[in-house]
Amino acid sequence: MNGADMLCDVLLTNGVDVCFANPGTSEMHFVAALDRKPQMRCVLGLSEGVVTGAADGYARMADKPAATLLHLGPGLANGLANLHNARRARTPMLNIVGDHASYHLQHDAPLTSDIESLARPMSHWVGRVAGAQDVRPRTEEAYRSALMLRGISTMILPADAAWGEVGPADLAPVTLPERPVVSPEAVGAAAAALRSGKRTVIILAGRALRAGALETAGRISSATGAALFSQTSDRTERGAGRVAARPVPYNIDLAVEALREFEVAICVGGKQPVGFFAYPHKPSTTLQPGCAVIELAGHEHDLAETLNLLAETAGVRNDVPFTPNRFTQPEIVAPTGALNADSITIALARTLPENAIICEESITSAGKMAVLAPGLSPHDHIPLTGGAIGIGIPLATGAAIACPDRKVIALQADGSGMYTLQGLWTQARENLDVVTVIFANRAYAILQGEMRNVGVKDFGRNARRMLDLDNPDLDWCSLARGMGVEAARVDTIDGFTDTLKAALAQKGPFLIEARI
Amino acid sequence: MNGADMLCDVLLTNGVDVCFANPGTSEMHFVAALDRKPQMRCVLGLSEGVVTGAADGYARMADKPAATLLHLGPGLANGLANLHNARRARTPMLNIVGDHASYHLQHDAPLTSDIESLARPMSHWVGRVAGAQDVRPRTEEAYRSALMLRGISTMILPADAAWGEVGPADLAPVTLPERPVVSPEAVGAAAAALRSGKRTVIILAGRALRAGALETAGRISSATGAALFSQTSDRTERGAGRVAARPVPYNIDLAVEALREFEVAICVGGKQPVGFFAYPHKPSTTLQPGCAVIELAGHEHDLAETLNLLAETAGVRNDVPFTPNRFTQPEIVAPTGALNADSITIALARTLPENAIICEESITSAGKMAVLAPGLSPHDHIPLTGGAIGIGIPLATGAAIACPDRKVIALQADGSGMYTLQGLWTQARENLDVVTVIFANRAYAILQGEMRNVGVKDFGRNARRMLDLDNPDLDWCSLARGMGVEAARVDTIDGFTDTLKAALAQKGPFLIEARI
Repeated sequence: MNGADMLCDVLLTNGVDVCFANPGTSEMHFVAALDRKPQMRCVLGLSEGVVTGAADGYARMADKPAATLLHLGPGLANGLANLHNARRARTPMLNIVGDHASYHLQHDAPLTSDIESLARPMSHWVGRVAGAQDVRPRTEEAYRSALMLRGISTMILPADAAWGEVGPADLAPVTLPERPVVSPEAVGAAAAALRSGKRTVIILAGRALRAGALETAGRISSATGAALFSQTSDRTERGAGRVAARPVPYNIDLAVEALREFEVAICVGGKQPVGFFAYPHKPSTTLQPGCAVIELAGHEHDLAETLNLLAETAGVRNDVPFTPNRFTQPEIVAPTGALNADSITIALARTLPENAIICEESITSAGKMAVLAPGLSPHDHIPLTGGAIGIGIPLATGAAIACPDRKVIALQADGSGMYTLQGLWTQARENLDVVTVIFANRAYAILQGEMRNVGVKDFGRNARRMLDLDNPDLDWCSLARGMGVEAARVDTIDGFTDTLKAALAQKGPFLIEARI
Repeated sequence: MNGADMLCDVLLTNGVDVCFANPGTSEMHFVAALDRKPQMRCVLGLSEGVVTGAADGYARMADKPAATLLHLGPGLANGLANLHNARRARTPMLNIVGDHASYHLQHDAPLTSDIESLARPMSHWVGRVAGAQDVRPRTEEAYRSALMLRGISTMILPADAAWGEVGPADLAPVTLPERPVVSPEAVGAAAAALRSGKRTVIILAGRALRAGALETAGRISSATGAALFSQTSDRTERGAGRVAARPVPYNIDLAVEALREFEVAICVGGKQPVGFFAYPHKPSTTLQPGCAVIELAGHEHDLAETLNLLAETAGVRNDVPFTPNRFTQPEIVAPTGALNADSITIALARTLPENAIICEESITSAGKMAVLAPGLSPHDHIPLTGGAIGIGIPLATGAAIACPDRKVIALQADGSGMYTLQGLWTQARENLDVVTVIFANRAYAILQGEMRNVGVKDFGRNARRMLDLDNPDLDWCSLARGMGVEAARVDTIDGFTDTLKAALAQKGPFLIEARI
């Protein structure tokens, strides 16, 4: 066997059995090895933004990493923006980036580049395989790092390490060390704050937004009066029967206002919230300057266990009553009037299937969903985390591969959707159960708002031509059909509602272009 | 005025009046400043691969740099693959990458990343503006570097440097230093080689492939018997009345065979040719081991002047007869039979308009064009240089903006075309005169060949699913129309010929999906 065979064996031994890929010549021995492993599911993306975004969506929903196969520096580069998002989501992922044979690098062949320099900003672990014998230990290290760091491992595989011979090995799953335990001092301080009578907020992120952890947070909140907020994270279990935390608003003024009252903030799963961007004469952080910040636990900790420990230390009993979202909400009235972002969101909320996965890159369009979500059927929400646009279609693709029995609904802005529209083809090829709703406002609407924020009232030709997406309008139905995905355009709210119901009733990918 | 206004003024003062852009919030002050400068042409790309690829195509044809506007690390990352190609083409380019306000970086906001680490592998110069007062000197340095290094300058512009106030300045175009002169020793050695009677090859690259330099090389070849070869470069002036150099083949075996006879190689504009990839038991370089290599001049030199100097030193007279390509070639017979890569290429060759720009990312399909080119109307050939696929559509876009009066013909493979198909929208919006021919073979055909090279005869499911582009087939006409580009599909050679003639007869973008 060769190094590439060993790599496949190590992956499969550790349960990594999905590989999102876009290969090239330097990875041909790896492709040949994958071809000898029918138990590995190889999913082709027609650009690497699809590959890494899908691996992110897969891991968020499968709770285990996928592998990716990327072609040299440029292949990695194309995938970096969605790796950035995955990095911010703390998604475990194992990227395998092919490189030239080690002895060929000195010749600076046309495709040579500094892969490590490209990989480091978007990876938590970067390593280079030193030869065929190094494939096993290095892959095991990459896998272990992805899980323990909850993050991105990028392993560079020179072609001669892939094609070099190695002996067979007696493989076993990698043993993972215990997760670090939060310090008793931090727990004590947080518990003391909860009992102090000070106005306290618990800011949850990452795996603290799964149903079990949220329930514990809900009990703490009920017993102590602490408020619950959430930061944008990989995945939130939402809907009826679950505890809702209020998202910290994106807008800096609204975020400051929302957090103004608090004297103590306990951060679980992340650091204190900061402004997405800086603006002249506005603060960079959103808590009040005098607010005490207790960073109780990071992504590396077991957050459900951390919250249990906090509840126990704060004297919150297991049987304290708390308030999950109601299963029976006031009925959401059917939307009427114009087709717009709000009416679409309301129609979606009324139609949401049980146990759906809402994949969100709606940017300016689906804000109302966060308001309605607590009363809807239980569902998962997986959003854009790092602000690098072009994740929605790939993310939905990966989530659908992880959860073939669940309906994936992608709320997709048109401008960001164009970044990685190629993912629709993968949805068609794999016959994935994804309904994509394009909010076709024909603009980078968020940027038009930001332009107004910097004081520009009337846009000239250059601003219009950089912020509008019209002239020509994109025809999303034509684009979707060009990649084998059924599609329909709607201009009215009734048309949207009917089309959505029909799309949800069938299996396989469907795209709705909602012209708002 | 603010730093962003100053930036625009420095660009315009130096003749940089085209900006390919995809902005974000951190660049809003720059967008507002551009909006105050109607003399700057801002061209939106719907993904950054389009932005950087178009800037490459523009500069190759305009012989001056364009600016790009990219949004933070992820925006730059999306453009890196085509920056890699531009780096290999030694294209002058001035990237402006927005970043958070300098004081905001410490908070590690979601879109924060190490932009320098991302930029360095694909840039020849990287700098960060230190504040509004630093905008002018840093931009001038970036511009000077792009021209003198013939390469990629990437300047990071923090938001507070853009919005900070600066006083007006008396701007003047940047003074460029003299280009370095090749050493008399190297010229002497090369001239001696030419007169030595040894079998000598002159290997041309970069600006040595423009008509004037080629003519000098042709005279040297006629007078001394030296062979002329070319390496893949930014732009080759080809066709009747010009001197042709023979391309070093991509295939390593063919390259070694083509260069086997030579005892001395004189490299002008680049280093000695190397294998695109390494293969087990095959060499990394293509000249014979004993071949003496004289690296006479690099991209930084004036190559036309270098060749003049070489001719003079070697005693080649200005009036020595040489053999340009004939204006009247044997007639190319109209293709008949099946629609395939060769028949398409022949039909194209018969129809090539005067002074066309052939933009090539045909990968496995248009090899015959290089054979036919010497006898065709004079034209420019701008190919994929760095092996990072997805350049064709953007490159054609930029070339058409640089040369609005010339017909651009893009020879485009389907697999690589899908990487940056978004560029078609920019072609439609700017009404660019580009005819794109998609060689729709529904496969990564080059990789299928490479798989066979590594000994795999029968492809299993995983290999097929990573190397085939079928199931579903891409419908390129639908994709093009979805972005406002007129398109037609052809299945026969007569259909292709007729459609091509019609497409060439009209103005504006047109896409032909040739199913081969």
